[in-house]
Amino acid sequence: MTIETKANAGEREFKQFGKRYRKVDGDDKVTGRAIFGADFTAQGSLFAKFVRSPHAHARIVSIDTSAAEAMPGVEAVCTAADFPSDVSGDVDTGEVEIGIQFLANLIMGRRKALFEGHPVAAVAATDVHIAEEAARLVKVEYEVLPAVTDPIEAMSPDAPLLHEGLIATSLSGSADNPSNIAGHMEGGKGDVEKGFAESDVVVERTYRTALVHQGYLEPEAETVHWHADGRIDVWANSQGSFPLRQNMSNLLGVDVSKIKVMPLEVGGAFGAKNTPRVSPVAAILSRKSGKPVKIVLTREEVLKATGPASGAVVTVKMGGTKDGILKAAEARLVFGAGGFPGSPVLRGMQTIFACYQPENSKVDAYDVVTNAPRVAAYRAPGATVATFCGESTIDELARELGYDPMDFRIKNASREGDSNIDDEVYTRIGIVEMLEAVKASDEYNRPIKESANGWPVGRGVGIGWWPCGIEISSARVMVNHDGGVDVATGAVDLHGVRTGSAQVAAETLGIEPEEVHVHTADTEGIPYTGNAAGSRITRTLSQAIFKAGSAVIEQMKEKMAVRFGVDTEFVEYEDGYFYARDNQDSKVSFKDAGAAVTKNGSNITATASNDPGMRPANGYAMAVADVEVDPDTGKVQLTDFTLFQDVGKCVNPTQVESQMQGGAVQGIGWALSEEYVFDDQGLMRNASFLDYRMPTALDLPMIGTVILEKSADDGAFGIRGVGEPPIIPPPAAIANAIRDAAGVRMGMLPMSPERVFEAMKESE
Amino acid sequence: MTIETKANAGEREFKQFGKRYRKVDGDDKVTGRAIFGADFTAQGSLFAKFVRSPHAHARIVSIDTSAAEAMPGVEAVCTAADFPSDVSGDVDTGEVEIGIQFLANLIMGRRKALFEGHPVAAVAATDVHIAEEAARLVKVEYEVLPAVTDPIEAMSPDAPLLHEGLIATSLSGSADNPSNIAGHMEGGKGDVEKGFAESDVVVERTYRTALVHQGYLEPEAETVHWHADGRIDVWANSQGSFPLRQNMSNLLGVDVSKIKVMPLEVGGAFGAKNTPRVSPVAAILSRKSGKPVKIVLTREEVLKATGPASGAVVTVKMGGTKDGILKAAEARLVFGAGGFPGSPVLRGMQTIFACYQPENSKVDAYDVVTNAPRVAAYRAPGATVATFCGESTIDELARELGYDPMDFRIKNASREGDSNIDDEVYTRIGIVEMLEAVKASDEYNRPIKESANGWPVGRGVGIGWWPCGIEISSARVMVNHDGGVDVATGAVDLHGVRTGSAQVAAETLGIEPEEVHVHTADTEGIPYTGNAAGSRITRTLSQAIFKAGSAVIEQMKEKMAVRFGVDTEFVEYEDGYFYARDNQDSKVSFKDAGAAVTKNGSNITATASNDPGMRPANGYAMAVADVEVDPDTGKVQLTDFTLFQDVGKCVNPTQVESQMQGGAVQGIGWALSEEYVFDDQGLMRNASFLDYRMPTALDLPMIGTVILEKSADDGAFGIRGVGEPPIIPPPAAIANAIRDAAGVRMGMLPMSPERVFEAMKESE
Repeated sequence: MTIETKANAGEREFKQFGKRYRKVDGDDKVTGRAIFGADFTAQGSLFAKFVRSPHAHARIVSIDTSAAEAMPGVEAVCTAADFPSDVSGDVDTGEVEIGIQFLANLIMGRRKALFEGHPVAAVAATDVHIAEEAARLVKVEYEVLPAVTDPIEAMSPDAPLLHEGLIATSLSGSADNPSNIAGHMEGGKGDVEKGFAESDVVVERTYRTALVHQGYLEPEAETVHWHADGRIDVWANSQGSFPLRQNMSNLLGVDVSKIKVMPLEVGGAFGAKNTPRVSPVAAILSRKSGKPVKIVLTREEVLKATGPASGAVVTVKMGGTKDGILKAAEARLVFGAGGFPGSPVLRGMQTIFACYQPENSKVDAYDVVTNAPRVAAYRAPGATVATFCGESTIDELARELGYDPMDFRIKNASREGDSNIDDEVYTRIGIVEMLEAVKASDEYNRPIKESANGWPVGRGVGIGWWPCGIEISSARVMVNHDGGVDVATGAVDLHGVRTGSAQVAAETLGIEPEEVHVHTADTEGIPYTGNAAGSRITRTLSQAIFKAGSAVIEQMKEKMAVRFGVDTEFVEYEDGYFYARDNQDSKVSFKDAGAAVTKNGSNITATASNDPGMRPANGYAMAVADVEVDPDTGKVQLTDFTLFQDVGKCVNPTQVESQMQGGAVQGIGWALSEEYVFDDQGLMRNASFLDYRMPTALDLPMIGTVILEKSADDGAFGIRGVGEPPIIPPPAAIANAIRDAAGVRMGMLPMSPERVFEAMKESE
Repeated sequence: MTIETKANAGEREFKQFGKRYRKVDGDDKVTGRAIFGADFTAQGSLFAKFVRSPHAHARIVSIDTSAAEAMPGVEAVCTAADFPSDVSGDVDTGEVEIGIQFLANLIMGRRKALFEGHPVAAVAATDVHIAEEAARLVKVEYEVLPAVTDPIEAMSPDAPLLHEGLIATSLSGSADNPSNIAGHMEGGKGDVEKGFAESDVVVERTYRTALVHQGYLEPEAETVHWHADGRIDVWANSQGSFPLRQNMSNLLGVDVSKIKVMPLEVGGAFGAKNTPRVSPVAAILSRKSGKPVKIVLTREEVLKATGPASGAVVTVKMGGTKDGILKAAEARLVFGAGGFPGSPVLRGMQTIFACYQPENSKVDAYDVVTNAPRVAAYRAPGATVATFCGESTIDELARELGYDPMDFRIKNASREGDSNIDDEVYTRIGIVEMLEAVKASDEYNRPIKESANGWPVGRGVGIGWWPCGIEISSARVMVNHDGGVDVATGAVDLHGVRTGSAQVAAETLGIEPEEVHVHTADTEGIPYTGNAAGSRITRTLSQAIFKAGSAVIEQMKEKMAVRFGVDTEFVEYEDGYFYARDNQDSKVSFKDAGAAVTKNGSNITATASNDPGMRPANGYAMAVADVEVDPDTGKVQLTDFTLFQDVGKCVNPTQVESQMQGGAVQGIGWALSEEYVFDDQGLMRNASFLDYRMPTALDLPMIGTVILEKSADDGAFGIRGVGEPPIIPPPAAIANAIRDAAGVRMGMLPMSPERVFEAMKESE
């Protein structure tokens, strides 16, 4: 269902948008014809396996690779010693930052292993079984150190120190002593103490959340060939060919122009595949062996040693008045980063109160290293955790004030022209329209279904905001000799890029999507394009396609002017037809014109990138969740779930709804069942999909979706980002529903049966 | 050695041309890393084998594929019945023409098999051995017909008729009855009878030449995947991705925009791989099976059933005066086309007297079908045979006139502004300069080396002309974030396209070739580009690169103007540096400027095609051959051989010399040892490289090369074509050397020992 908000009334009509155009690469993807990372094997490849630390924290005393090297079939072994030690340059890993030196040490541990599964060596052999066997022959002597996985414990002066030289920096300067605190950030406005003093009610709650994994279907799988002439070919399932090229360049000390990244299909990523973990190692092994080297991770490696989302400890304090004013909001966010600095705590800080305008606010944020896998981006990184904490607290505050929580939200909502905690003024935003739409919706108003088991039932809501990324995207539009159109994108296909781009190109060119074929180009085939991350691709790429497509129309007008025997300015293009202004009978279709003007050897093609000055479009989504809670076990059963989202302009409802449903389900897993379980040595005890519990279809109701469209205020079509907002509100909405059903305020994610049961027992 | 002819004096200097720049893809090609047709296997491929006619001429009565279809592992069988029967559209097979319906029937015989090895069915199976086995189970009932392989015999009214409806057409109208004569063309000027009457001496000779094969190292090997959504992917080792796409489109009735051709490396082609023979069949098998289908031919299939060069029978009559005037030249060329019309006899007609200006001329040319493999282009198609005949006769005429053959040539040579037999006026041409250069050369003047065996020795020369093709080539130039440059070409790499294009781009951009990386793009990656054929690529592609590169410089000037704070018109680019005109200190290198202007998200890229109005540049080469002849066996030993060629402007001497040497060696094989041997049933008796005798290094002296440079009069750099001219003069020069040594005028190619021995015996 699509609701057109009033703000959109009278806007221009689009022919191709809002259509459920069939996924153009669906057949290939479901029949196994599409080439994903593991499917691709270069001519004469070797296969490599990592040697990984079995300890969560250890000093690497020595590494003896001689037995592995002597094994027949082994062609190269590498350790950190084979990488340049003086790496420099910028790192682009999407939304979660890491310094280049840290990235190098994350990819291959040099002096220390900082989490279980941290790579310390790798072996390439003629087959993967030999590589596996040989990896076992690498002798690593460790000095095992005490491990710390909880970020609060890690902040203690007594905690085992991960990085001996790590000095926290903040606005107020550097810390005096090294610690596991990598950074301390502060923000806010006004005077929270004054705000709390003016409040009728003040609530304060502390929340803890576990590390969770993106759970993408396809493990990292990449192949690299370092040619004898110094050029490097990379076949990658990363989120961005160009950022990977730049990272490889910086990590390996090779010019970007010597590196070619060829995108393969990506079987899910959600932020994790912005960070290179495999290709740099494959590159070194290829350089040493002279052959292409392929590395495919196992699920256990993915869970233990790629980048999950941060676990966090967050305290939120809010004060309000009985007439519904949010006088003050304060938060202290402590995010675990895993073995190296750079959790998304800054994003948590930015998103926690973003939907509201508290009169006074204050946020402290701590980035803390722990002996856990180094975190990565995961769909709106930082926002899901922060919103769970913020929306739980505001719900509690409204309840205690005796003010309707929805009305409290509306009264304090952020509006266009308001600014966020970082003083960034919102571009066109529709938080109020969304809250009003949910308030008026059937999903919010209908009676909650009675439990067949007689269990208590409840309903909760939560709203989340995400800025949505920008960065550069590039596209090329080219007309073939039969008038058909090819479109090249620099973006990989992660979320229907080919299908959506075909619609965008068709819209721009006034033709049908069937006449457009979209392919994802390699780094030599198109100009720079950033990662497919931050909900930025459709927004930015559509502008690039619009610019290139418009240039193509102009080129065709020039050619048609010659055929019509008029000046170019007298050629019109309308509804798919070119004609001379004073001769309506001269109409020639795009297809015929395309064929005609290219036949004599002219080429019709244009390349464009979006405007670097584009501003982030706000993304926001709201969830309405109904639950029933088993009083005997604490098990929470989701009985109804609907996600409302403003997408600015919906290109393809099927694809948008899939993003919404997929994001919601991941948020639901985060809320109810997913978590990393560490023992006291920092070892992960549930590194398989049997023990790491993601929701299945059987655990879920049908996920309802409501698309709202208040167009963004720049870009070619008013498109906002879609991918990230849906994951943000589910834990908040479910927590509020549990509060409604069972009268308990959950302070931990996941809200697993035992935790809910304990909370209920405690509240009795 | 390079001789600068006077015409070039004072021309602009190039920095990157004339340098022996290392072959950029050499490492990959010699180490087996480059992906040739047979190296590529798509995910889940089937493998196919042809069922071929064992008869040179037969009616196909019935085909029973049931046993093959029933064999486990077989997934598709196809016959002509699976192809559209109403194909239409243009065919682009490079320089040798074939109608689309004939092409369809050549690829898969429908009613008749017209040569041994003509495909009548094909089988795709899960492995190639099953396919081979199953192909044997296809039961084909043939009505065997008498075969004719000699074109003169085929012209006889009594000859077996290949095509029942084939009516010869000529300028004077259509023939009355069907025959094996597919076409009759006439040309010439003045009155040859008058010319012969005015001559002091008239000579007339008849020559016969055998079919010869290009002998490329790599057999045809292609993979096609016809997707369920109707799109077709083709991985081809063809000479042109775009013409193959067009041919596939016409043959299969699928829009070109639905077909993507991805070029693989091409292991030699020489004209033969302009004609699609494998991919259309793989496409049908893929459509029927739903899987990618790969076909790799064997050497026997290549020799029997791909396209060799025509065998011909040519009569030449020339008359001249004692003061060295060529009064009249007449020729009758009969070229065998193989099973379907379209021999290169028109090119033979165009080239036979092209180097001269006979006062009167007349040429009759016949295109005749025979029960031999359908011919294809082979380096300057038609010219080698025609030149052998023309240059043998002119040598004979000069001898009989008692006029120095070299001076006779110079006196009658074609000059700029003259026109050829087809009334085409020559663009800038240097035939006279070349003849003068050879006449003055050491190779022509030094004493012929005595034979260590005491055999007679001799020296001969021959000169050949070729128009060199034009057609469209496209290129894209793109600047990376580190200031490095990527160049995409629509042309496949057949003859150093990557290396030469890197030099051309470097020359255009004022940088070094090391800073440029060239790749051959697929049909979605770049606009239309014709076949890599007709010695056209370096000439046309260099103009496209020049145009795109110049546009890139302009784009960079615009961006640098902003940095310099001046108007674009005040930004200069010189010797690799941008600077503001009034501030020499502002110098920024191309690399730094490229990095700077792309860093903020701007893209710097331009795509261009050469001017469709470009005219063919003349290509011409002259050979000086020294031989000794064994009087007891007739064996001709080449003792010295030098090729002179005007290349207009030499981009890379090593690559140019390789082309010259390669072409010369192929011409030498044609002259002395290569031939198709047919029995009286039209079956080829020497279909292997053991029996089909190509020259080896042991048979040859070092091939000397002399590069001349009289620049062509259009194109960006004055480049002429290089690939084809070298093959033209060797048979003529060697025939004239044998005449010089042994006193016999050879009337047949190859001039094998037995033929030379017979000729010597006869002349005694």
